[in-house]
Amino acid sequence: MIVVYGLSIIQNSTFKIGFTMPSLYAIGVGPGDPELLTLKGARLLREADVVVAPVADPGGSSLAHTVIREFLDPPRQQVLTQVFPMRRESADLEELWTQSAMQVIEFVQAGKKVAFVTLGDPSLYSTFQYLYRQVKRLCPDVPVEIVPGVSSINAAAALADLPLGLGDERLAVLSATSPPDVLHRALEDFDTVVLMKVHRVFVGLRELLAAVGLKEKSVFLKRVGLPGQAVFRELDAVGEDDLDYFSLIIVRKA
Amino acid sequence: MIVVYGLSIIQNSTFKIGFTMPSLYAIGVGPGDPELLTLKGARLLREADVVVAPVADPGGSSLAHTVIREFLDPPRQQVLTQVFPMRRESADLEELWTQSAMQVIEFVQAGKKVAFVTLGDPSLYSTFQYLYRQVKRLCPDVPVEIVPGVSSINAAAALADLPLGLGDERLAVLSATSPPDVLHRALEDFDTVVLMKVHRVFVGLRELLAAVGLKEKSVFLKRVGLPGQAVFRELDAVGEDDLDYFSLIIVRKA
Repeated sequence: MIVVYGLSIIQNSTFKIGFTMPSLYAIGVGPGDPELLTLKGARLLREADVVVAPVADPGGSSLAHTVIREFLDPPRQQVLTQVFPMRRESADLEELWTQSAMQVIEFVQAGKKVAFVTLGDPSLYSTFQYLYRQVKRLCPDVPVEIVPGVSSINAAAALADLPLGLGDERLAVLSATSPPDVLHRALEDFDTVVLMKVHRVFVGLRELLAAVGLKEKSVFLKRVGLPGQAVFRELDAVGEDDLDYFSLIIVRKA
Repeated sequence: MIVVYGLSIIQNSTFKIGFTMPSLYAIGVGPGDPELLTLKGARLLREADVVVAPVADPGGSSLAHTVIREFLDPPRQQVLTQVFPMRRESADLEELWTQSAMQVIEFVQAGKKVAFVTLGDPSLYSTFQYLYRQVKRLCPDVPVEIVPGVSSINAAAALADLPLGLGDERLAVLSATSPPDVLHRALEDFDTVVLMKVHRVFVGLRELLAAVGLKEKSVFLKRVGLPGQAVFRELDAVGEDDLDYFSLIIVRKA
């Protein structure tokens, strides 16, 4: 899927000139419902020459692309995928991100308007940040505009019918794989705690929540905004099949 | 602004029947740019019979209403404001929220589609939650749909050009008026800390951030998405006039 271009493009200083308008847009497409795209996101997708969608595996399908498919005009627009594997940072991932960044820079250099689409919001747990870091490193002059989107956390709260925060309340968002002392402190200090990546450690986490008296204050959600979306108000009702990558728990003490 | 209706409406059990579609929509209109409204929000605003916008003071203007004005059709739609004062919960506030809830319930009972608009997202520090609590208490059968929106926190991160979280990172959102030990623990345990309501305690907060070596990792933003929006990458450049109610600090350690 990745076309590797020569490094020469980033040594050509002439393409620094003429960047007045953003050429690379990071568009948060929201949690999954195409109607939760922003008006700005929809407009920029229509205006884009090239739309880049991330996939987790080569040949895999892109959730962000599925969300925005109806806004695209394939005969006119070039739509491509880039691979962003879901695993910890490593040297070979850095290399992959660099290649993706170079591909995007090449399009921008050719005068194209590029839209990179990402599920949720580009600032929060988004693949875009990995691309962006390399774009800034390789070619800091590329004008980038980040178009915020509805985060899956906000969509999860709406679906669970729980506020994330009121007044002076405190909200923590952290991976359920965080060290136990950090989890304990967060559950102690914060009014609402959103636990991400719960699929990895669900059984132990449920025990921890029971131990601190918060199991009954916890709502499990899987695949918010995506096919197979579900809400569990009883953690004991969550089965092994429900432990999707896109699952989270909202603990609301109030 | 508030019309008080008789309590009889909530004792009429017949109106429990026939609620198949949501009749009350809470619409997050995003941080301020009308283009950051979602497509769903725009559609529901067009379809609404009654649009309710919160104001902080009687006779004051509603920011949420300003954002969505262009989507309304005043000859056909009834647009009204309800007062949600920005102060701590108290008995007289409870009474005010109850009146607002009764007004909304009355519209729903009359078969109207009601859209309550709120800046940002309805789940995160939104006035809607105060109304909603009373609606659920007075008339739990009113079908409510919460339509998530782009939170000002996500918009602030985009504007500050800082991620809120990557991979397994941890994010805390809390009022800068939280107890000092809680602030210290959050700054220790979390990769990114968003401090709200910094206008109340800015000078002391800046000292605290300097003391823990995070002053240079802090970005101050005021009025994100609103007129007068500004980003300060140096906390020392923030003047007294910049300490707006809508200001926050993003502390990003990485």
